[in-house]
Amino acid sequence: MEVRPYENDPAWKRAAYSVIFESDTPAGRLFDIVLLGAIVLSVLTVMLESVPAINAHYGPELRIIEWVFTALFTVEYLARLLVVRRPLNYALSLLGIIDFLSIVPTLATLVLPGSRYLVTIRTLRLLRVFRIFKLGQFVGEGEFIVTALKASRFKILVFLTAVLTLVVVMGTLMYVVEGGRNGFTSIPQSIYWAIVTLTTVGYGDISPTTILGRTLASILMILGYAIIAVPTGIVSAQMAGARPAPAPAAPAFKQVICHVCQAPDHRPDAEFCWRCGEKL
Amino acid sequence: MEVRPYENDPAWKRAAYSVIFESDTPAGRLFDIVLLGAIVLSVLTVMLESVPAINAHYGPELRIIEWVFTALFTVEYLARLLVVRRPLNYALSLLGIIDFLSIVPTLATLVLPGSRYLVTIRTLRLLRVFRIFKLGQFVGEGEFIVTALKASRFKILVFLTAVLTLVVVMGTLMYVVEGGRNGFTSIPQSIYWAIVTLTTVGYGDISPTTILGRTLASILMILGYAIIAVPTGIVSAQMAGARPAPAPAAPAFKQVICHVCQAPDHRPDAEFCWRCGEKL
Amino acid sequence: MEVRPYENDPAWKRAAYSVIFESDTPAGRLFDIVLLGAIVLSVLTVMLESVPAINAHYGPELRIIEWVFTALFTVEYLARLLVVRRPLNYALSLLGIIDFLSIVPTLATLVLPGSRYLVTIRTLRLLRVFRIFKLGQFVGEGEFIVTALKASRFKILVFLTAVLTLVVVMGTLMYVVEGGRNGFTSIPQSIYWAIVTLTTVGYGDISPTTILGRTLASILMILGYAIIAVPTGIVSAQMAGARPAPAPAAPAFKQVICHVCQAPDHRPDAEFCWRCGEKL
Amino acid sequence: MEVRPYENDPAWKRAAYSVIFESDTPAGRLFDIVLLGAIVLSVLTVMLESVPAINAHYGPELRIIEWVFTALFTVEYLARLLVVRRPLNYALSLLGIIDFLSIVPTLATLVLPGSRYLVTIRTLRLLRVFRIFKLGQFVGEGEFIVTALKASRFKILVFLTAVLTLVVVMGTLMYVVEGGRNGFTSIPQSIYWAIVTLTTVGYGDISPTTILGRTLASILMILGYAIIAVPTGIVSAQMAGARPAPAPAAPAFKQVICHVCQAPDHRPDAEFCWRCGEKL
Repeated sequence: MEVRPYENDPAWKRAAYSVIFESDTPAGRLFDIVLLGAIVLSVLTVMLESVPAINAHYGPELRIIEWVFTALFTVEYLARLLVVRRPLNYALSLLGIIDFLSIVPTLATLVLPGSRYLVTIRTLRLLRVFRIFKLGQFVGEGEFIVTALKASRFKILVFLTAVLTLVVVMGTLMYVVEGGRNGFTSIPQSIYWAIVTLTTVGYGDISPTTILGRTLASILMILGYAIIAVPTGIVSAQMAGARPAPAPAAPAFKQVICHVCQAPDHRPDAEFCWRCGEKL
Repeated sequence: MEVRPYENDPAWKRAAYSVIFESDTPAGRLFDIVLLGAIVLSVLTVMLESVPAINAHYGPELRIIEWVFTALFTVEYLARLLVVRRPLNYALSLLGIIDFLSIVPTLATLVLPGSRYLVTIRTLRLLRVFRIFKLGQFVGEGEFIVTALKASRFKILVFLTAVLTLVVVMGTLMYVVEGGRNGFTSIPQSIYWAIVTLTTVGYGDISPTTILGRTLASILMILGYAIIAVPTGIVSAQMAGARPAPAPAAPAFKQVICHVCQAPDHRPDAEFCWRCGEKL
Repeated sequence: MEVRPYENDPAWKRAAYSVIFESDTPAGRLFDIVLLGAIVLSVLTVMLESVPAINAHYGPELRIIEWVFTALFTVEYLARLLVVRRPLNYALSLLGIIDFLSIVPTLATLVLPGSRYLVTIRTLRLLRVFRIFKLGQFVGEGEFIVTALKASRFKILVFLTAVLTLVVVMGTLMYVVEGGRNGFTSIPQSIYWAIVTLTTVGYGDISPTTILGRTLASILMILGYAIIAVPTGIVSAQMAGARPAPAPAAPAFKQVICHVCQAPDHRPDAEFCWRCGEKL
Repeated sequence: MEVRPYENDPAWKRAAYSVIFESDTPAGRLFDIVLLGAIVLSVLTVMLESVPAINAHYGPELRIIEWVFTALFTVEYLARLLVVRRPLNYALSLLGIIDFLSIVPTLATLVLPGSRYLVTIRTLRLLRVFRIFKLGQFVGEGEFIVTALKASRFKILVFLTAVLTLVVVMGTLMYVVEGGRNGFTSIPQSIYWAIVTLTTVGYGDISPTTILGRTLASILMILGYAIIAVPTGIVSAQMAGARPAPAPAAPAFKQVICHVCQAPDHRPDAEFCWRCGEKL
């Protein structure tokens, strides 16, 4: 959780906090939108840089842009640390860690060239976008999904354990059956194949060719096809159950009819007729 | 929305409108059925034309048929514009735009030969078919589905955002891990692979070969297998919830407060206060 | 529907009907079990015959076995026609048509050699198995599924129409984008690819290679991944709604009957009969 | 079910039982954790042994480790048999069979070298893990899933029967249509292809190339895409139904209280008090 600065902070710090961390003021919103644009552009820069044809022509330029963005994000990160009342709390918060990881990869290229591309982890910073646009609806829906998943976490873990056991046993069987050929060169490879098959991904880079192997594979596929019903059923039931209580039924009316004008449907607590004003 | 002609339109215009836009009269229905057949035939023509073997033998004939259909649809489009009271409203309506896009591609071939095939967008015009056959049931069910999807749109958007973030991060990781080989030649390519994998499509045109890559891929596959439960759960819960007739909306109360006793919440048609009997 | 013979049929006909069409008597059940075995064996025979290695060695023998089975099934079909009171009704019933189709392919091989393998349509005759074993539970559950699907048929048709439109439009787009290469050689081929992709099957025999093509494919995959939620939601909601009201928990009554008035169903803690007041 | 030793067993046997079979005492928990570690390590050993590169370097060492583990598990199995009061019951229980199968493969390598890898069936022993950590929540959730699946078992069997029939018929059709080429070399192969397609796995090792074949495949794919809704719907509905404890139907009691003993809750048709026998 982010820590709010107290009233006795210096004015500049409170103002900076309001701009950097909040988005209630025009300045704060502008900051967030600029940040948002910078994140998207920097991720695109890194993506383009990874394309060989583009890298060959614009490599140096892209690298410069990338360094500029990283410098900006580093300044921003330091500003956040400076402005916040409890820097350690921020630094160890989920958003703080993401902010930090967003600047590390470029700096790490000085040692390890390939790490640069990991800056796409900056994409995770886009989660802030919901806050910027005051998308309360979105946040609420996101929380609804997360709540439903959390409530189902034990069931999902049990399901995953069963899936992993199934995958290990089937992978081993296939390794023995296919005898190390056709890509089934080791048990870990066969387990990989079993996962590819059970999840119905089916690359086809490894596929059985013996009759027994294909029979086993068929069983695994039908199992995979059938047991996908389990997590779906879990989450569906959870969400159906978690649905907000339906709007309260229309208030029941008083079971009385005005003896003067015969008007029905009075409030339960009505003492006078709504149509003629007669005492009920 | 289509604009209905007023009573003081000339008789021929009203009759033409009834034939072209409505399907209550025998003439109107015949028009729609002929139109329906023409759409199907013209789409089939273009499909056949795209098959090299058929194109080699019957290319010129098919192109002539295509031009005849396009001429017919152009005349029909102009007639719709002429007959409708507010042509601009029609032209900018969803159906109007589809009607327009259905004739553009053939005309555009004069400039850009390949564009001809886009006339299959005419398929979208088949949506009119529900209206022709008075398939109220269909329309109702279609609306039910659309309503359920609309009610879930925020949840689905949140879900898609999460999926996109996951795909970008996993794609980058795989690019770094597989080191640019085996089809993982750039980050966009790796993101494409991540989408192919997460959605369990699994072409196999790109697939990991390193141990770490296959481990990451396994995690992504199991994630994809598990999180498909989320949209399904959303829509299932929405549809299950939307099933029973929704509780009648609480009656809107009169926006007035008794000037004597300040009692609120009077019936919309109340003339006297329910609490003190005073004239409202 | 099968037609039951009337009481005034000759005794042999009624007996034969009971054996062939019903499974209440030991003879009837034996007949059904033998038939069941014959169906399975004949289908296996044809399957084995289709395997080149087996066909090379045992081809003639398998063909003889196949002819024997077909002769048996022909006799059985004729017997059914003979025994039933309204042969035409039986012949035109679903089961009657399946019975007929089960013997045609072998006979047709006299004219068209390849047709022999179609006798595997006999597998459909296994649907009788549910009746043989009095699997009322199965039949009930099967009917439950069929009812849920029937109730959802309009929604499913609307869904399929939307899917087909999507597939036609996307297939055309991909044909134009990929320019006839990489397997996208015609619009029908591209539509085939779109179906393979949307349904998340993903053979990989046709897959896009251009950037634009892969972007479009990604959109189609995510659409396919998301809209599978629709039929699932439809059927889930239907089944959840159609679930039989849970049997009311039978109130635990005292296992005692009043020795004076024979009144049952006393409270577990009752000491006197509720009807006559006698001490229990 | 495991058999608990009786009170009159010798003290050492009761103590050993408590350590080996139970996990309430510190010793019992330690035993289970050590066992858990041994299972994981032994499975990893066998996995590594199956990787050619690792086997070439460390093969002998891994085989020795494997034999040590198998010796340990054999001792453990014999101890379980010795300690339990009714060894046969344990040996024939599910866990007992798994325990036995976990030691057989290594011993069998003396006769059949390839069987060694089947020791990964030891993974199933990890199911004990839930008991070790007193993961009551897990066990409860697992039972919830198992209960929901059991309640749906007839529906799932009906569904699987329908799927198998569909797969046999479609496989045969494709064999006839594709004429034995493109991997459709026999009916069993074509059925394998149909399963790969219907379950949306889609390896692509066999895929149709004729127009008719691709049309049939498209139908099968859309069917597979649509009917996955059925098991999902079954399980979702089952789980949604099993979720809220159904409010007990309030037994309609007589709105009367015995004037002698004040006993409430009389049957609606009761004429005498159930507690004191007084006329109501």
